[in-house]
Amino acid sequence: MKPYVQYSAQERAQEYAALCKRREEYQNLGLKLNMARGKPGTEQLDIVSDLMTVLQTPRDCIDEGIDVRNYGELTGIPSAKRLFAELLGTKPEEILVGGNASLNLMYDLIAKAYTHGLLHSQRPWSQEKEICFLCPAPGYDRHFKVSESFGMKLITIAMTDDGPDMDAVEEAVKNPAVKGMWCVPKYANPDGIIYSEETENRIAALRPAAPDFALMWDNAYCIHEFFGEFVPFRDMLTLCRENGNADMVYEFASTSKITLPGAGVSCMAASAANQKYIESLLTMQIISYDKVNQLRHVRYLKDKETTLQLMKEHAKVLAPKFAAVLDALDSEIAPLEIARWTRPNGGYFVSLNAMEGTAKRTLALCRETGVVMTPAGATFPYGIDPADSNIRIAPTLPPVAELKQAMEVFCLCLRIAALEKLGV
Amino acid sequence: MKPYVQYSAQERAQEYAALCKRREEYQNLGLKLNMARGKPGTEQLDIVSDLMTVLQTPRDCIDEGIDVRNYGELTGIPSAKRLFAELLGTKPEEILVGGNASLNLMYDLIAKAYTHGLLHSQRPWSQEKEICFLCPAPGYDRHFKVSESFGMKLITIAMTDDGPDMDAVEEAVKNPAVKGMWCVPKYANPDGIIYSEETENRIAALRPAAPDFALMWDNAYCIHEFFGEFVPFRDMLTLCRENGNADMVYEFASTSKITLPGAGVSCMAASAANQKYIESLLTMQIISYDKVNQLRHVRYLKDKETTLQLMKEHAKVLAPKFAAVLDALDSEIAPLEIARWTRPNGGYFVSLNAMEGTAKRTLALCRETGVVMTPAGATFPYGIDPADSNIRIAPTLPPVAELKQAMEVFCLCLRIAALEKLGV
Repeated sequence: MKPYVQYSAQERAQEYAALCKRREEYQNLGLKLNMARGKPGTEQLDIVSDLMTVLQTPRDCIDEGIDVRNYGELTGIPSAKRLFAELLGTKPEEILVGGNASLNLMYDLIAKAYTHGLLHSQRPWSQEKEICFLCPAPGYDRHFKVSESFGMKLITIAMTDDGPDMDAVEEAVKNPAVKGMWCVPKYANPDGIIYSEETENRIAALRPAAPDFALMWDNAYCIHEFFGEFVPFRDMLTLCRENGNADMVYEFASTSKITLPGAGVSCMAASAANQKYIESLLTMQIISYDKVNQLRHVRYLKDKETTLQLMKEHAKVLAPKFAAVLDALDSEIAPLEIARWTRPNGGYFVSLNAMEGTAKRTLALCRETGVVMTPAGATFPYGIDPADSNIRIAPTLPPVAELKQAMEVFCLCLRIAALEKLGV
Repeated sequence: MKPYVQYSAQERAQEYAALCKRREEYQNLGLKLNMARGKPGTEQLDIVSDLMTVLQTPRDCIDEGIDVRNYGELTGIPSAKRLFAELLGTKPEEILVGGNASLNLMYDLIAKAYTHGLLHSQRPWSQEKEICFLCPAPGYDRHFKVSESFGMKLITIAMTDDGPDMDAVEEAVKNPAVKGMWCVPKYANPDGIIYSEETENRIAALRPAAPDFALMWDNAYCIHEFFGEFVPFRDMLTLCRENGNADMVYEFASTSKITLPGAGVSCMAASAANQKYIESLLTMQIISYDKVNQLRHVRYLKDKETTLQLMKEHAKVLAPKFAAVLDALDSEIAPLEIARWTRPNGGYFVSLNAMEGTAKRTLALCRETGVVMTPAGATFPYGIDPADSNIRIAPTLPPVAELKQAMEVFCLCLRIAALEKLGV
């Protein structure tokens, strides 16, 4: 094996014919493999299903004098606030405990910015001529889609190995129409990198022209290591406060990939002033979130130490899956020099950059061969990757055997697309 | 006992002195009684707490091939759609199953109208000069507060024994700025009346000038009888469709007062076209609602028949409480002719109209005596009851003994306020 660029035209033609034949064989198997989304696999769900039985009797439902079965405690039960505060390194009074989806909390915050304005807004965003949002890319497709859905102008910020390109960010926030930025600071979706200390310092010290600039700090993978030990992270609320930006940051997290994705608990951490303002709007919207489920999680996860132990159990399931992806890429793709990819220690993705102009073709070939992956371009604003290069690999859902097969198909398709690009 | 208006000045003064003395005695007891909100009591929560243990194992979580523990099924699991469809008399494809709060679904719909517009909106409501909403009053305070929070102009519609004053409604909807109406068609909050067949027919046949008029049909008490047998109701979606208004109605319901108020399941019923449109927006907002809890409810409630049986158990708890309220009013207040009140067979409230100008004073006296009730005016737009007369009694939370005591205090305060009004 040698790099494809060193292949002669004849070698490429031979290789292409051989690969197409192999792909045809896979096609005949009628595979149905899915690496499209960051979904935990069944084995992980089974690990945590005792969650469902921690509350059995009416007496179990009394928590520090609160009957969690009834209405009340709009912003969450105190014990759940303490649990999330410990996990995130914030204060309990900075925590709003929500329903089962942190995406919903993020969407709601943006929606409120549009309908009511945020704490420091001069007017609701719906009354502004233009709203721009910074989108470090590749990034999480659903973040970008929230912004797009509200008609924002999405501004692409390049991702580096340290996080968003801060020169570009610092320049962009001089425009008062730039109202916020999406960030996944630890094990970024999809790159899997952790923002560097300097990047975080520069983010916390931003001086946006917009008084209501919203730093959407989606700490989705804050304790989600699958290789190695837990990597501590700094509390962004404190960092922003120390930089005179106490009300700039909204941090989000959830137990979707700690307990059950369909039935977890989410939270938003923000300054006490922000919490007070949000609560004043939230009181029109909901009487209380599901406190029974909040208490289930408090009793099940207990504290940070117990939760980190549980994450080790998840890691045991996830590590072989990520290893299978990297092994396949290392052996099948690396020598050909047709792609680069990340080697994260946590999160839910491997991000691969194929030869420019081959991502869409690769994934079309995969789809035809029965392997569904995140659509090419999804990791960029408006779903358009200018280089048509980035591919997000989500290896967590399929069992290892299926995953290996899916990766065989993927590597095959990646090679075929590269050869077509080089000319066959 | 005779009507207060027939009392001489001296009789009034004597009566007043005696009542004030009795109130002072109550004040010395340091009571803490709450009839402020439609909250189920602990006995009701205990009845349904087996809900928490119906799902025990991973295998229990597979429903018609769907693992409810994982992401997916944005609009709800099919079995939950069928359950709500059976309860409401709609089709399963007309049901969106949401999180734990129907208020949240209502708020979200209004928020989406503002940020994106509804199916037939010409533009998002945030871009309209004025949005008006019809508020049959007395009505549910939180409905009005949602509208108020979005800056709508609230238009009061008088409530009759048959529902909203339809002459006024038909006139009001000729204004294209009138974008919707709040309704609680069965056991209206707080009056406890059921909309008459003619009223429902006229609502379904409305010809609003606004193409995106939203009939907010909050069927919160659709199966919530506490006296007598279940009273069938008509499917408003069908009625509207038959009148060429298929997309005008959004019906809401929840299990908050069937199972657990803090941890139930909500739903929105709407035309297939509306559902398709809402889903296209919802997909940006949330990956899925809590399907584990949806399945818990399906397994626990089973079907309409079983659910109506359960409502009989609730009725056994609630009937004595409503009887206690009515008995107190019948014996203590009726002969004095200082108030009128409703005698509902279901729902969560008794609505009382005191002598004009005495509601606020009555409730201030109650509060000083340790009995908290829904603030006077809350049942009217902007929290202002022009007659200062309507008082919402919510007897469900306190145990019967406490409730009787609270009603003694309430009757005392009502009488004191009436005497003050008549002159003492």
